[in-house]
Amino acid sequence: MNEILLSDIIAFFSADIVEVKGDISNRRIMYLKPVGYEDEFTLDWVNPANKEGQQFAEHSKAKVILCNSKIEYNDALQKSDKVLVVSEAPKLLLAKIYHQYFKTLPVPIISDKADISPDAVIGANCYIGAFCSVGKCKIGNNVIIMPNVTIYDDVVIGDNVIVHSGTILGRPGFGYERDSDNMLYLFPQISRLIIKDNVEIGANCAIDKGALLDTVIERNSKINNSCHIAHNVSIGRSSVITGHVYIAGSTKIGNNVWISPNTTFVGHTVIGDNSKVGAGSLVTKDIPANEVWFGSPAKKQRDNE
Amino acid sequence: MNEILLSDIIAFFSADIVEVKGDISNRRIMYLKPVGYEDEFTLDWVNPANKEGQQFAEHSKAKVILCNSKIEYNDALQKSDKVLVVSEAPKLLLAKIYHQYFKTLPVPIISDKADISPDAVIGANCYIGAFCSVGKCKIGNNVIIMPNVTIYDDVVIGDNVIVHSGTILGRPGFGYERDSDNMLYLFPQISRLIIKDNVEIGANCAIDKGALLDTVIERNSKINNSCHIAHNVSIGRSSVITGHVYIAGSTKIGNNVWISPNTTFVGHTVIGDNSKVGAGSLVTKDIPANEVWFGSPAKKQRDNE
Amino acid sequence: MNEILLSDIIAFFSADIVEVKGDISNRRIMYLKPVGYEDEFTLDWVNPANKEGQQFAEHSKAKVILCNSKIEYNDALQKSDKVLVVSEAPKLLLAKIYHQYFKTLPVPIISDKADISPDAVIGANCYIGAFCSVGKCKIGNNVIIMPNVTIYDDVVIGDNVIVHSGTILGRPGFGYERDSDNMLYLFPQISRLIIKDNVEIGANCAIDKGALLDTVIERNSKINNSCHIAHNVSIGRSSVITGHVYIAGSTKIGNNVWISPNTTFVGHTVIGDNSKVGAGSLVTKDIPANEVWFGSPAKKQRDNE
Repeated sequence: MNEILLSDIIAFFSADIVEVKGDISNRRIMYLKPVGYEDEFTLDWVNPANKEGQQFAEHSKAKVILCNSKIEYNDALQKSDKVLVVSEAPKLLLAKIYHQYFKTLPVPIISDKADISPDAVIGANCYIGAFCSVGKCKIGNNVIIMPNVTIYDDVVIGDNVIVHSGTILGRPGFGYERDSDNMLYLFPQISRLIIKDNVEIGANCAIDKGALLDTVIERNSKINNSCHIAHNVSIGRSSVITGHVYIAGSTKIGNNVWISPNTTFVGHTVIGDNSKVGAGSLVTKDIPANEVWFGSPAKKQRDNE
Repeated sequence: MNEILLSDIIAFFSADIVEVKGDISNRRIMYLKPVGYEDEFTLDWVNPANKEGQQFAEHSKAKVILCNSKIEYNDALQKSDKVLVVSEAPKLLLAKIYHQYFKTLPVPIISDKADISPDAVIGANCYIGAFCSVGKCKIGNNVIIMPNVTIYDDVVIGDNVIVHSGTILGRPGFGYERDSDNMLYLFPQISRLIIKDNVEIGANCAIDKGALLDTVIERNSKINNSCHIAHNVSIGRSSVITGHVYIAGSTKIGNNVWISPNTTFVGHTVIGDNSKVGAGSLVTKDIPANEVWFGSPAKKQRDNE
Repeated sequence: MNEILLSDIIAFFSADIVEVKGDISNRRIMYLKPVGYEDEFTLDWVNPANKEGQQFAEHSKAKVILCNSKIEYNDALQKSDKVLVVSEAPKLLLAKIYHQYFKTLPVPIISDKADISPDAVIGANCYIGAFCSVGKCKIGNNVIIMPNVTIYDDVVIGDNVIVHSGTILGRPGFGYERDSDNMLYLFPQISRLIIKDNVEIGANCAIDKGALLDTVIERNSKINNSCHIAHNVSIGRSSVITGHVYIAGSTKIGNNVWISPNTTFVGHTVIGDNSKVGAGSLVTKDIPANEVWFGSPAKKQRDNE
């Protein structure tokens, strides 16, 4: 259990904090806690969406509360000796504090119950869980591969990547040519799957390697559970692909894109930077940058401010 | 192979049986059988939806036939010495008989090919299959975890739960906050996944643990394959979630609900008791109790009688 | 690495080749290569969809180029001593050449890290990867089961089948009967899953065994990632089921059918031979043979020429 001086947290995140109300001297924070489990060593917070945020702050058993400027530092809070850490974006700041101080990751070790190809090249400080099958691939530093992940050959993974359980990386893509006798022949699937730094991939995803061009996921992008990403797809930086998204072959998704759940891309379309696609959409056309699309088939709804 | 006196079955399920036609003395039942494989020791049945049910009963090689009152105990049936067990709901009764006498479950054993955390607490009489990875969690009695399941930390499983292969339980949820540099920070995912008694979860599901509130699945609910259930979701009692259903964060689903395949919930909605949602729907609003909704976005179709 | 005489390739596929331009004597081919990685031992190709195919052919470092008759054997190609292998369907022919000469499959071995039931019957020349759990089932010859696959009991697999990682075969189907107390009873799930020769099944699929009738996938059909195929479904020969397709119970799909991504079949419908269903469709009715359907719910769009 960490024990951190509140003054250190405030100093570290001073750019994110508008004001601190109350006496922070010698305050220590030990953890974040689920709603209802907070105590005096908890850093608690008030969600700006909470209409009864003032009461929430007053009733919290925590002594340090992260909030926005709508919470008044009133008598009740002062008398109970609470500290308010005021931020314009308390949800983001809570996530940053969690990331900086409290997020726990598996101890880096390669399980002796994993099956690692002798041709795999694995960087420093990696965790690879039990029942992972790792083919002829290259894995960077500080990578976390949770249990029961399968990595085929020809996969290249950068640093600080997290892959959750049940995910299959680098399967040869699904592209068949039919002849006049209705025999189906697999088109050559001989390229790679490249996953850049800081990407996180959810559980039970299937991400195929490329046919004659690589499949690429650029750095910082995050992918939720049960997504399928086909051969030759490229996904830009810092994009968010939520769950049950199906991205057919050769789709090009830009940077800072948000794809809502259960969206289907039919393939060979280009999705511009900073665009957003609503849930359950069927994307059949290119989407320009900075637009919000939705529907089946998806159409422009508005600009993405 | 069981060998059960028909008279015992009839006595046990007397409340479900309207009438028995024919001589049941010394009749024994050994099994249920697939269509076309029945023999004299089979308990066969006539599906009420079968328009040629009478002929089906006459042609069956079984001597005991479960049916509704539309099947006549005619000369052909009498001469072939068949017994009709008449129920108003033969399909339900067949399921109950299967459950009571014939359903086979794995012998309770924890595979030495599973990887169990020393901090896991596991009840009596459990089956845990090969290549299961089980974290710091609590598992009740008579639980069946089929092979290749992954259970992260902070999962609490009740009694008589079944989890099918490839399912991932308790992954930290997918909730990111974006800063002005397009860095994505994971919001704290520090609560639990709680699965109550008699829940069955299909293959290749991904059910995340809660962020600051628990994810909860109440008793008797059944979930089909490849569903995604996000952080903070709650699902009531005796609800049926069919396959490829996507339930985004903080959705609250009531009791005795039926969710048809490939439905998407966008999150933060409340779905009332005894409601029903049609296939391929996109649920963007609260659904009151006792209503049938369908569509993308879903709208009320009718009351659920 | 293979080294093949071009004259042998041309002789083998003479029926698929219209014309060969240039001197093939002593030309050898060692491999196919991703775009940008070709060299003098590569068999390269020009995609008929490439509007700048002529320049592509001229700039290729390969000496042998598969193309259609639109590529001119001009001075540049002649002077660089290149050979054009002309086909009416170069994409299909490339797939056939890949299949015949260059596609690599795992060396047939049953991993000592797999868990195989003593009641499993496994044919000759099979590959079964690490962390596969194989129940009481029958597997033919030359079958490839990639790592982390789970096969329940009562599964019958033909010859030359490929099953990708994370797939679950033969789970008892999902069919519950509800009683007046809202208890849910599983309907008997006692039939088999039968997978015929040359079927390929993608990653993270879940294919259930039958209730009282078998689930059957006929020969040569190909299924992409994350599909769910329920109890009692039948799929004909040489059909293509792309990814994230949900096929509910008792759906009958014909031969040479094409199902686009994220399509949902609500069950108990019949899909005719040579039909095609567009992406994201919800199929609620029978589809006649030779038709193209699309939409939610799906409607006929046109004949399938």
